[in-house]
Amino acid sequence: MRDPVSESDVRGVDLAEVGIRGLDLPVMIREKAGTLARVLGRVEAAVALPHYERGTHMSRFVEILNRWSKKAIAGSEMATMLGELRETFHSPRALLRLEFKYFLAKQAPVSGLISQLDYDCSFQGDLSDEGYVFTLGADVPIMTVCPCSKEISDRGAHNQRAILRVRLHTLPDTVLWLEDLIPLLESQGSYGIFPVLKRPDEKAVTEAAYDNPKFVEDVVRDTILALRATPGITWYSVRCDSHESIHNHMAYAYGEGGIG
Amino acid sequence: MRDPVSESDVRGVDLAEVGIRGLDLPVMIREKAGTLARVLGRVEAAVALPHYERGTHMSRFVEILNRWSKKAIAGSEMATMLGELRETFHSPRALLRLEFKYFLAKQAPVSGLISQLDYDCSFQGDLSDEGYVFTLGADVPIMTVCPCSKEISDRGAHNQRAILRVRLHTLPDTVLWLEDLIPLLESQGSYGIFPVLKRPDEKAVTEAAYDNPKFVEDVVRDTILALRATPGITWYSVRCDSHESIHNHMAYAYGEGGIG
Amino acid sequence: MRDPVSESDVRGVDLAEVGIRGLDLPVMIREKAGTLARVLGRVEAAVALPHYERGTHMSRFVEILNRWSKKAIAGSEMATMLGELRETFHSPRALLRLEFKYFLAKQAPVSGLISQLDYDCSFQGDLSDEGYVFTLGADVPIMTVCPCSKEISDRGAHNQRAILRVRLHTLPDTVLWLEDLIPLLESQGSYGIFPVLKRPDEKAVTEAAYDNPKFVEDVVRDTILALRATPGITWYSVRCDSHESIHNHMAYAYGEGGIG
Amino acid sequence: MRDPVSESDVRGVDLAEVGIRGLDLPVMIREKAGTLARVLGRVEAAVALPHYERGTHMSRFVEILNRWSKKAIAGSEMATMLGELRETFHSPRALLRLEFKYFLAKQAPVSGLISQLDYDCSFQGDLSDEGYVFTLGADVPIMTVCPCSKEISDRGAHNQRAILRVRLHTLPDTVLWLEDLIPLLESQGSYGIFPVLKRPDEKAVTEAAYDNPKFVEDVVRDTILALRATPGITWYSVRCDSHESIHNHMAYAYGEGGIG
Repeated sequence: MRDPVSESDVRGVDLAEVGIRGLDLPVMIREKAGTLARVLGRVEAAVALPHYERGTHMSRFVEILNRWSKKAIAGSEMATMLGELRETFHSPRALLRLEFKYFLAKQAPVSGLISQLDYDCSFQGDLSDEGYVFTLGADVPIMTVCPCSKEISDRGAHNQRAILRVRLHTLPDTVLWLEDLIPLLESQGSYGIFPVLKRPDEKAVTEAAYDNPKFVEDVVRDTILALRATPGITWYSVRCDSHESIHNHMAYAYGEGGIG
Repeated sequence: MRDPVSESDVRGVDLAEVGIRGLDLPVMIREKAGTLARVLGRVEAAVALPHYERGTHMSRFVEILNRWSKKAIAGSEMATMLGELRETFHSPRALLRLEFKYFLAKQAPVSGLISQLDYDCSFQGDLSDEGYVFTLGADVPIMTVCPCSKEISDRGAHNQRAILRVRLHTLPDTVLWLEDLIPLLESQGSYGIFPVLKRPDEKAVTEAAYDNPKFVEDVVRDTILALRATPGITWYSVRCDSHESIHNHMAYAYGEGGIG
Repeated sequence: MRDPVSESDVRGVDLAEVGIRGLDLPVMIREKAGTLARVLGRVEAAVALPHYERGTHMSRFVEILNRWSKKAIAGSEMATMLGELRETFHSPRALLRLEFKYFLAKQAPVSGLISQLDYDCSFQGDLSDEGYVFTLGADVPIMTVCPCSKEISDRGAHNQRAILRVRLHTLPDTVLWLEDLIPLLESQGSYGIFPVLKRPDEKAVTEAAYDNPKFVEDVVRDTILALRATPGITWYSVRCDSHESIHNHMAYAYGEGGIG
Repeated sequence: MRDPVSESDVRGVDLAEVGIRGLDLPVMIREKAGTLARVLGRVEAAVALPHYERGTHMSRFVEILNRWSKKAIAGSEMATMLGELRETFHSPRALLRLEFKYFLAKQAPVSGLISQLDYDCSFQGDLSDEGYVFTLGADVPIMTVCPCSKEISDRGAHNQRAILRVRLHTLPDTVLWLEDLIPLLESQGSYGIFPVLKRPDEKAVTEAAYDNPKFVEDVVRDTILALRATPGITWYSVRCDSHESIHNHMAYAYGEGGIG
């Protein structure tokens, strides 16, 4: 059988990424406690394709991913997987993007009740001749109380759910656990969000949030200051999308920058 | 050319619906003022397929829809379109479902500023030997302030955007305009939602909503009472999905019933 | 603290469902092999609210769900959970809807390579004075080759991914495993779908699918016949949505019916 | 009333973007024929916020957008809007992102039937002290027939719908109309996609696509060559996402580059 994928190409166009997207796969994430969390991953995997090759054998991505879905994944394991992808495909560059819901136990502030809250997280690895870049991502739901609404109103203040979206790079030898990053981000809103709140909890959350009003601009700036104060982070992007309760659209703020 | 679609079928299975879904098409909606609104429609069209026919000529749906996209659509026009579908396909039943964003002018309560707010609406028509049923749908964003949070807290109260989703049937000779239905639904929340609010507006909205706290249960019950008091409505379903600002999930209530 | 939720209500409106939606939670599904699958669940839980009660203590849903997320779930366990919900809320009716991605091993037809394929599945339980109704759901990706395109063309035939969506009820003492239902549904398309196919597999899949062209009407009818021939099923609804490769919309067919 | 938005800030953090997202608004797009197309726009508008200002008056974005929704929009008008945003907000940078479905008439290849096909398009403008950058975007559905499947199979070849996603910059005095760009992109697949095809059309489409098999790698490379040959384009990014009919995931290729 002739193999069109293996043919040479004369169009002279290098492709930055060739691979698969939207693959759902159970994967295991290394947790801070040393244990493993089995999560539902959505995966994107690709390699660079030099101009002289026509195509890529896509099935190899899924074979490699299936094998790796049985092992624990964290920043360092992704580098190993990417090395295997580069070698298998004889490619100068390999990429992996993994999105998953991660759960952490949240304790209600007064009753002490514990329940599981979900966070949209991501790992991205990019390995090329220029080195290895790992990007950690977390989208954390928070509550924002509007400072303007509180200031001008005789009573009440509009508030809403907002999503604080952070992507960051760390020094090669730094491991930043989601278990540490997520609580840091949750503390940047007017208050955090909880799956279970009994009535004394709800009173505490309502009052504490009302006492700590924040614009999206405030949330992003405070988050940036907190990330700058965290050792080992070399780059960040921070966005806060607030689903305004008085509007049918979002207010948002965005900032990014390198550190050190 | 043999036409497999036109073959007879011996499996003996009637199909309730055969047609197309997810077709995007610009359509014209008849407005209360007598004018026409050009909107972006997402269309589903189908006919029943008797057990003795193998298939349906799907291209005819798109041909008919393209022709109708140049005419105004409201409840009565849908009946005409469905009659044409039934005749073209020699089918006992024809269905049309149309979803579209509809815009109405909203006036801010103090400044009087006017801006356009979007509402997810739908028309559905079902014509069979048992008659014609038209279902009108509107999903209206509102604000809900939690009565429990207000009651137990010394200051503030959590609030959020909620969506009030209504579907209803009317008497054959009743025309219920979206221009009348939507404001009726908006008035069932703690307060309405606006694209533009200046600071005096924001003060008015915050205070009025705080003075009118409502659970999703309250919103749905008050909506049902308002629909029962509206002449010509014969059936309703009402759901309120509240995107709780203190949780990462929704609270909801649902009720449905016939009138008269 | 006054508790507005516990107040009585004079509006006289019964609500069919009051509860929570969009809650993400890891849950454990009982597998045919006797083992447990940990999956990511999206949950909806509700009770009916009699007209004389103002509200529902929503936090109890999450407390109960958190406790149950540590136990295995299948049709019979849902009945137990619903009984607990009815009792906790003193309600005549309780509802649970659980959506999750389920993975089964798929073997490539020639190479024999095994990989995991994902299926969108659902469990729904409804317990009231009228009894317990459990609805099993599975959305299975298949391939459809168009019989018309094959018939009229000198070479080739358009084909595409389609989703076969089935919901069904079974007799109280019947357990229909997803491990048995899903392969039954996959065999109704022109051919199944695979995460990994090597070149000899791809040849086999292409040719077998081309030799077995099917309209969405054919897929739905054949599925209905297969479900009717499966002992213990008392009701079904079947939809096939085909993402036509020659159009930007879907072709679909739908049928439902009771058995016995 | 104290205005917290207008306060000064001492945190020393510049924000790249502060504004609104997810606003739905009817807008008018300038067409090649000189006419105007009324489309449903989803809008994002933002300005940069210097470190010494605490917040942004978000309502002004919606006021300006409402006023502009009554005028025609194309690349040059966006520059004017952005100038107004910069001036209103006294900001060094303003951004607008507009996403909309655009319709073009498609003629079936044999019957000559004309129908409307929808394309997801976008305009993005970024005005700062470094100048004005306009990005034009179009996501065009095409059909891809797999060359490998065709080569190795005795009959048939798997094919599917794919989306060709292009973003590009042009020289300041170049106007690239969607009416010209979209047909150029459609011709890069194995064949185009149509809302209405009669049986002779379907035969022609099936055979022509079968005679022109293409990998996603081929589609992206041929598109890049076509864009390089189009006068006035200075930068492009091209992605092809193919919804493989034999898999439950996508195959994709991506390339980007500057010209001249």
